[in-house]
Amino acid sequence: MVNHAGHDGTNRPVNDDTISSAQTSEAVSPNLGSIYGLTPKVEAAFHEAFSQQEWQRVRMLLDPLHPADKADLFERMGMKECVALIQHLGDDLDPEILPYLNDDVREEIIDNLGPHIVAQSVTELDSDDAVTLAEDLDPDELDDLLAALPVQDREVVEQGLSYPDDSAGRMMQREMVVVPPFWTVGQTIDHLRSFEPERTEFYLIMVTDVNGHPVGEIRLDRLLCSARPRRISEIMETDLRSIPVLMDQEEIALLFRRYGMVTTGVIDEEGRLVGIITLDDIIDVIDEEAEEDLMALAGVSDGSIRTSIIETLRARSAWLMLNLMTAVLASLVIGMFEETIEKVVALAVLMPIVASMGGNAGTQTVTVAVRAIAMREFSPKTAITFGIRELFVGILNGLVFAVIAAVLSYIWFRQLDVSLILGFAMLINLVVAGISGTLVPLILLRTGVDPAVASSVFITTITDVIGFFVFLGLAALLLI
Amino acid sequence: MVNHAGHDGTNRPVNDDTISSAQTSEAVSPNLGSIYGLTPKVEAAFHEAFSQQEWQRVRMLLDPLHPADKADLFERMGMKECVALIQHLGDDLDPEILPYLNDDVREEIIDNLGPHIVAQSVTELDSDDAVTLAEDLDPDELDDLLAALPVQDREVVEQGLSYPDDSAGRMMQREMVVVPPFWTVGQTIDHLRSFEPERTEFYLIMVTDVNGHPVGEIRLDRLLCSARPRRISEIMETDLRSIPVLMDQEEIALLFRRYGMVTTGVIDEEGRLVGIITLDDIIDVIDEEAEEDLMALAGVSDGSIRTSIIETLRARSAWLMLNLMTAVLASLVIGMFEETIEKVVALAVLMPIVASMGGNAGTQTVTVAVRAIAMREFSPKTAITFGIRELFVGILNGLVFAVIAAVLSYIWFRQLDVSLILGFAMLINLVVAGISGTLVPLILLRTGVDPAVASSVFITTITDVIGFFVFLGLAALLLI
Repeated sequence: MVNHAGHDGTNRPVNDDTISSAQTSEAVSPNLGSIYGLTPKVEAAFHEAFSQQEWQRVRMLLDPLHPADKADLFERMGMKECVALIQHLGDDLDPEILPYLNDDVREEIIDNLGPHIVAQSVTELDSDDAVTLAEDLDPDELDDLLAALPVQDREVVEQGLSYPDDSAGRMMQREMVVVPPFWTVGQTIDHLRSFEPERTEFYLIMVTDVNGHPVGEIRLDRLLCSARPRRISEIMETDLRSIPVLMDQEEIALLFRRYGMVTTGVIDEEGRLVGIITLDDIIDVIDEEAEEDLMALAGVSDGSIRTSIIETLRARSAWLMLNLMTAVLASLVIGMFEETIEKVVALAVLMPIVASMGGNAGTQTVTVAVRAIAMREFSPKTAITFGIRELFVGILNGLVFAVIAAVLSYIWFRQLDVSLILGFAMLINLVVAGISGTLVPLILLRTGVDPAVASSVFITTITDVIGFFVFLGLAALLLI
Repeated sequence: MVNHAGHDGTNRPVNDDTISSAQTSEAVSPNLGSIYGLTPKVEAAFHEAFSQQEWQRVRMLLDPLHPADKADLFERMGMKECVALIQHLGDDLDPEILPYLNDDVREEIIDNLGPHIVAQSVTELDSDDAVTLAEDLDPDELDDLLAALPVQDREVVEQGLSYPDDSAGRMMQREMVVVPPFWTVGQTIDHLRSFEPERTEFYLIMVTDVNGHPVGEIRLDRLLCSARPRRISEIMETDLRSIPVLMDQEEIALLFRRYGMVTTGVIDEEGRLVGIITLDDIIDVIDEEAEEDLMALAGVSDGSIRTSIIETLRARSAWLMLNLMTAVLASLVIGMFEETIEKVVALAVLMPIVASMGGNAGTQTVTVAVRAIAMREFSPKTAITFGIRELFVGILNGLVFAVIAAVLSYIWFRQLDVSLILGFAMLINLVVAGISGTLVPLILLRTGVDPAVASSVFITTITDVIGFFVFLGLAALLLI
């Protein structure tokens, strides 16, 4: 029954409702499908077994699932059922689930489990996963956890936490295979054979000198393709890019992408090898950073569809408050020209067009600049080239849309002077958008503010204020 | 000279002007620094040698650089110099540079090189890089290239191109190590030793049955830790997630992230193993998709600081044109209430506040929804939960900002009726923003339009129109 659940041999599109196939090794057609483990059928069978308290069957259904699938299943259950399930599983709870859970659910599960069960799980995790798990805990919970850990694991976690947030020291994994350069290929392979088979995965063997400084690394394929009598020093790669333990994760991710790296060593201040970082840790960083930029540009700091209402409200309203202040600023500018508007109401009708176009053009420029900053593509030279391009784009787009807007408004209101003023204000505002869209992120970067977070408020404020001021100001000067 | 360039033993922050260290194997302190190869010193020395036409020194300086650094250097040169350099390098041009170049520069270089030199480079690339390079060519250039390729390579490229854009078939690498399940560990290792040492990298050995269907895979560390007499079938991982050759890259990336995969097999319609995809290919996809979403939400389809002015103008102005139309739509709504505004000018001053707040709140909701859609986090159940949360957030934020806006406007204009209308319009518009911010991306998804591209236009149009209409409409009803 379990073995064939959902295994209909087709590859349907990825979707929560239609993901295909089972997580079994002896399935009917092992060559097809079996991509996603948690199919709706498996999930339904699980819920049925769970509600009828058939624990034997629950275990049978959970057992073949990947930790990511189990985590998914846990997240979709109610918190009460989830805790009940975990208590029933007891020691059989797969500790690998914890890193896959989203923060909120993990926190609640840990709260409900008590430090001892968590400690037991932590000892079975890789050091990087254990540190990631520990860094999300409250100080009290962390103390309880550390007290419950065996001395060796406690030291690993404490040392990991001693490095700054998001640094290489936090991300790195301490488990690694290190050999001296004078060993032979045969010696190294024999050494590896003495390991337990089910230890942590590794893709690279590090080579260090007597002082623990990295002097080389060997990919496993290279090791395997070499004859046993050859020396490690002959076949090792010496073009190393060791990462300092304090380097920030964003920079590490850029480095991995730039050089197409898969694994690399981490060194402490004395240049000694202290851990390794692998590409799969980098994936999470890239995701995180991309999401941060996306969310920051839209003024959303909560970021997930699972965040609670209170949390969401707090994060969103702060941004909306800021937006209210900038909107009031724009209104104050409009307020300066109340008399003009009273006399020529067409101005009130047309003025949002100028502001809106400026805001959009500015946001376009800002977005490209923010992305380029995140990817470290700006040097002084490219920044100037970019600024000049944006200025030209602003002028050309400004001319095009000045004409279009002027013609449209003339057709509408038949007031040539108003149309000419609209066109002129449009040109000015799009040029301003191009210039300030370049300068604002760069100035913010200089002053140490994250351009992704603050750029869009500044840019829309500038284009609103300038847009209204130029349009209404010219009207006040020329029309009355 | 070359060996010590920039190698001052410190690790400075990543920045074009201050990147540290050299790309050398015999450097003074091999354990420190040496992260970035293309330091300003190296670059300056290169430009000096190049301008004095000292080709020997140019080669010496280029030689130790990573292809990514060489590509960077090429991109920062003028096109004319770049072509001159490549012609001088001749056969010594490192073909690995080509995949690292950005599209525009690569295209120009290929145009200038002629099909034969390109063909020669392509034969030295991995099959996935060769296909990526070929897919960017014009039809004419592609024909020339294919004609210049040796038969075997031509077949590989043609077959790769026969799969749809962004499919597994395009991304996959054909070079892989495949063994039958009945081999022993020793046999496999001996087989690997018969390879040339400098072949393509691999992290996994695939196991197939007589029909070429994948039945297992073995990580190299597992192979190395196992005794020689053991059978492959005993130690292989049978819990496979083979990817169908037509699967889209976005889904493949999600799969890799979900299950923390590093390498996986690709199977054709008959379930036969045809290639492998590795995590480093996925990094590019994740970057690409994140950038697409970010740019799309801001209405920028050009996306890079290097895009030409013409290209940028075309891409941006299309979006601005769309924005102009929606702005005119909003103006038409305002135009319906010209008389009201003429009588109560405060309305003109205050109306942008309602629209702006609605637009911002809507963009917040849309951004979270678009990201969740991209990460496949929406199921019917979570979508409903999300919608309800956004509705509540809209109501609560609406109440808060209705009061604030009403109080502010009362202090300013001392007109109680105007203030109450402003507050009510604010409440309505923020609730509308929450509802439509949820519905618009989901409806777009249903109709097959990319929510990232179209959501933000729709949402700001809705909040502008509703905002102006409710505020001015209520004023027309109640004030006059």
